[in-house]
Amino acid sequence: MLERFGHGGDLLTAQEAFGGTAADFLDFSSNMNPLGPPQAVLAVIQDYARIITAYPDPASRRLIAKLASLHGVPEESVLIGNGAAELIDLIIRVKQPKAAAVPAPSFIEYSDAVHKAGGQVWNVPLLEEEQFAFNERAADSVEARPSLWIFGSPNNPTGRRVEPALIRRLLDDGHTVVLDEAFIDFMPDGEAATLIKEAAVHERLTVLRSMTKFYAVPGIRLGYAIAHPDVVRGMRWLQVPWSVNSLAQAIGEAALEDSGFAERTLEWLAAERPYLAEQLGRLGLRVYPGEANYILFSLPTETGLTAGDLQRAMGRKGVLIRDASLFAGLGSQYCRVAVKLRRDNDRLLAALQACLASDTGKAGAGLEVK
Amino acid sequence: MLERFGHGGDLLTAQEAFGGTAADFLDFSSNMNPLGPPQAVLAVIQDYARIITAYPDPASRRLIAKLASLHGVPEESVLIGNGAAELIDLIIRVKQPKAAAVPAPSFIEYSDAVHKAGGQVWNVPLLEEEQFAFNERAADSVEARPSLWIFGSPNNPTGRRVEPALIRRLLDDGHTVVLDEAFIDFMPDGEAATLIKEAAVHERLTVLRSMTKFYAVPGIRLGYAIAHPDVVRGMRWLQVPWSVNSLAQAIGEAALEDSGFAERTLEWLAAERPYLAEQLGRLGLRVYPGEANYILFSLPTETGLTAGDLQRAMGRKGVLIRDASLFAGLGSQYCRVAVKLRRDNDRLLAALQACLASDTGKAGAGLEVK
Repeated sequence: MLERFGHGGDLLTAQEAFGGTAADFLDFSSNMNPLGPPQAVLAVIQDYARIITAYPDPASRRLIAKLASLHGVPEESVLIGNGAAELIDLIIRVKQPKAAAVPAPSFIEYSDAVHKAGGQVWNVPLLEEEQFAFNERAADSVEARPSLWIFGSPNNPTGRRVEPALIRRLLDDGHTVVLDEAFIDFMPDGEAATLIKEAAVHERLTVLRSMTKFYAVPGIRLGYAIAHPDVVRGMRWLQVPWSVNSLAQAIGEAALEDSGFAERTLEWLAAERPYLAEQLGRLGLRVYPGEANYILFSLPTETGLTAGDLQRAMGRKGVLIRDASLFAGLGSQYCRVAVKLRRDNDRLLAALQACLASDTGKAGAGLEVK
Repeated sequence: MLERFGHGGDLLTAQEAFGGTAADFLDFSSNMNPLGPPQAVLAVIQDYARIITAYPDPASRRLIAKLASLHGVPEESVLIGNGAAELIDLIIRVKQPKAAAVPAPSFIEYSDAVHKAGGQVWNVPLLEEEQFAFNERAADSVEARPSLWIFGSPNNPTGRRVEPALIRRLLDDGHTVVLDEAFIDFMPDGEAATLIKEAAVHERLTVLRSMTKFYAVPGIRLGYAIAHPDVVRGMRWLQVPWSVNSLAQAIGEAALEDSGFAERTLEWLAAERPYLAEQLGRLGLRVYPGEANYILFSLPTETGLTAGDLQRAMGRKGVLIRDASLFAGLGSQYCRVAVKLRRDNDRLLAALQACLASDTGKAGAGLEVK
């Protein structure tokens, strides 16, 4: 399976499984902005040979200043991390929850981080008949009182948001909340929906952000946390020195300057997400609602295919999709695909159509197309 | 002080303290190979815009294969880290020592990592009258039995090696040892002196390596650990996903191909270290023996200067040196300088001479020279 290390976007495992080179694959298994990286970011890379011989700023001071100004929060409320993954690990180690409530399905790293810190995970099932919404029923389904809740908004792999009112209710009830907004930049009203301003002053609310999905630079690792200054101090104390490399810092600074890029991205997604969702539905797939740059769908039983079968068949056609059955709470029929540019989406759709038409799931090996 | 975040090489703090831009400073406060980075590494950076849009290999498979082959150890014994700093943190969190013995002086991160993991640090004093050697006296000076020893070999800031026989004795006595060989590539007989092969099969010996000092790429963060496969598994479990970015992995692979670079580096250091040590002595400074690409010296009382005074006076001349009084076990008269190319070393010597000749320690502010 492609998710040998727990996630999509693993082109080396794809080559081991299907042959060919990294360039032979169209990768729908990870969720990058197909418009990126911005030009300003590419310019920073060209210039990097000049600055790599110096240590990174251990405190990421310039990038923190820009983010604080962008979000209108104090610099003391911002922590830069080696990808959002590091920040999930740090906030859980700071909070040390004995038990954490985690929606199922959601990003696998939430549970992993809780387990690593010696805590217990309570899966809160999101239901297919509710289109995987996190709602009051889900919030009330936990009887005992967990010490911490972790959400993605929009959630991964569903793409559904968690309503701010529901999070505020949990906070008012005395809960601690870690809110992963890694994909919120892709929501048209992301600026209005974010809880960053509240997180900057609330001791029990932490917001996590990723810069690598929206700016399409996952290779370099960059994310940030917004939290009460006391919480930021606790996370920084546990963080290893120079955790954020100097290229990531420079790229983050450059990316924030390019405001036109965000506008173009939202325009592309507003057109392309509904198109891809509709076309997937026309292929007979069950498509679930969401607002992010990826789409969750399930394979009807009639196809006789599991997500694993479909992933293998698609891989041999040079198209990588995510087998979403590895997310807790999802059965063997669930897949997740990124939304890309029209020509790539059409190639995905054509490959899916071919796989669904014939029982190619179990046949052959090696790349069919280059 | 320059070491606001605990270490040298912080050019942004230098600018805040002395004015000017990063390019105005000659940095002797961090220990980079002045011959680097190798050409092959610069080529990788030029090409990076192409691969940054993909996730890093979560398992660093190609780089691990190269390192395992280079050192003649199994791949299961190698873990790649986001700089040696991350690996120090991970091995301490795996071993969870109740108490750790740490030579004083040595790299500050050893103690920090033990404290973060909830352990106690026992400083084992290295003595000036023994030229800061770690010897049998030091090994026997700890009465109670610590659960773990952490050494640098060569040690930082002294540059002195720890004799393998002494480490083997500690292992035979049942101790656990973390051996930081971050600067061993700079020792002429580093290949013969390393304990990597033993670490690969010994459950109580872990060797840490850095690739950023020798290859002069501290901006990007890259190190590795060699340990028993069970220990590597424990460290990997705690490591956050994609901790090592894709540029670091690619640079590591490219750097290992360039064997001529290592030869040229050892030639340069064999000539330049004795030269700089001798010239520092001629200025009336007390120079301590060592084998790494940096030199520890102390200011005689007659100068009336502390290391902090000298750092400020030198900083105003655009030359950054390390105030070594921040290392546990060293007094206010200790400084550390990197060894650089002859023209830079001569500039360091000229600036030192000027500072020692006049009581410039307390005068003025702002850069004198550009």
